[in-house]
Amino acid sequence: MDKADTVKLRFLFDFGSPNAYLCHKVLPAMAARTGVAAAYVPILLGGLFKLTNNRSPAEAFADIPNKRAYDALEFRRFLEKHGLTAYRRNEFFPVNTLTIMRGAVAAQALGCFAPYVDTVFSCMWERSLDMADANVVAAALNDAGLPAAELFAAMGTAEVKQALMANTQGAFEQGAFGSPTFFVNDQMFFGKDRLREVEEEIVSQRNR
Amino acid sequence: MDKADTVKLRFLFDFGSPNAYLCHKVLPAMAARTGVAAAYVPILLGGLFKLTNNRSPAEAFADIPNKRAYDALEFRRFLEKHGLTAYRRNEFFPVNTLTIMRGAVAAQALGCFAPYVDTVFSCMWERSLDMADANVVAAALNDAGLPAAELFAAMGTAEVKQALMANTQGAFEQGAFGSPTFFVNDQMFFGKDRLREVEEEIVSQRNR
Repeated sequence: MDKADTVKLRFLFDFGSPNAYLCHKVLPAMAARTGVAAAYVPILLGGLFKLTNNRSPAEAFADIPNKRAYDALEFRRFLEKHGLTAYRRNEFFPVNTLTIMRGAVAAQALGCFAPYVDTVFSCMWERSLDMADANVVAAALNDAGLPAAELFAAMGTAEVKQALMANTQGAFEQGAFGSPTFFVNDQMFFGKDRLREVEEEIVSQRNR
Repeated sequence: MDKADTVKLRFLFDFGSPNAYLCHKVLPAMAARTGVAAAYVPILLGGLFKLTNNRSPAEAFADIPNKRAYDALEFRRFLEKHGLTAYRRNEFFPVNTLTIMRGAVAAQALGCFAPYVDTVFSCMWERSLDMADANVVAAALNDAGLPAAELFAAMGTAEVKQALMANTQGAFEQGAFGSPTFFVNDQMFFGKDRLREVEEEIVSQRNR
């Protein structure tokens, strides 16, 4: 029996993670192959780092040039393998993502999540915009035809703020420590380098 | 044209790395598939860490329980995927590997490298012996029918000491920062999680 309906794939992400952007770009192709689309879960990476004692790779490996060079090599390999040509380094990195992550939760409530996510990932990692700046964010959302005023109003509500905190706390409690993190039902995988294993786990669980 | 002869695979390892043990166990199957056997390059991981400012995962992630739990999960997944049942945690970990890494260089000179490597990996990660203790090492080598006295005599020579240092310095200069590290000609890959990419790179270079 095909159990596609019982396989839940969750993608825990923060827009501030360039590796999450890479995953976002290749998840549609994976969904086409497996029949299982990812449910995107916005988390606040800074909050998850505090909860877990983890740090960003940029910070943790700042003094290890060989490690940074290798990570950059693996990043280029990923771009090349998947034919991703639009990526551009964000000159404001690291960016405080609190506003745009709250915006993601708000967009879920307002029914414009998919275009919001596409737009903000593009602003972060294709257009190199300063997405910590609310004015920049509002302009980008308006340009994309998204309801910027409604989104900003929702971002300010306790419901949205608490939902993002709850997502982040839940990620911590389920074992996550960074972005991107995947769950295939309860099986966790970390990082763009595990996408193949994520796909294999989906297929395995479908056929189980 | 088949270019198997022109594809050089190097495996930079330190016996102290459990992930290097895992790679050692699966490299023969990869060689059977690709026709390219790995050339093992002994390096001193502690020396490489000093050169690169890197630290062991045990040290770097000591205060990040979620990260440690995930690494343990990936370790178990690897054991299961490859049917490796002999692994046992080394109760003396972390082990100072200077003696056994010098021994690896000595074994290359004495023509007993392959059985030496098998024996020492087994002592480290199947038999949980204290391989920082020269008496334990000597007994284990004797038990395995290896020329312990000759190996220890060679370990004490300047040639062997300098060769291990040169391997380690060379690894640093080529971009390595940990163990296991692979080079497919000049293409570097780090970690047991990249073995599939190592194999694909070998096949790609063979068919180029």
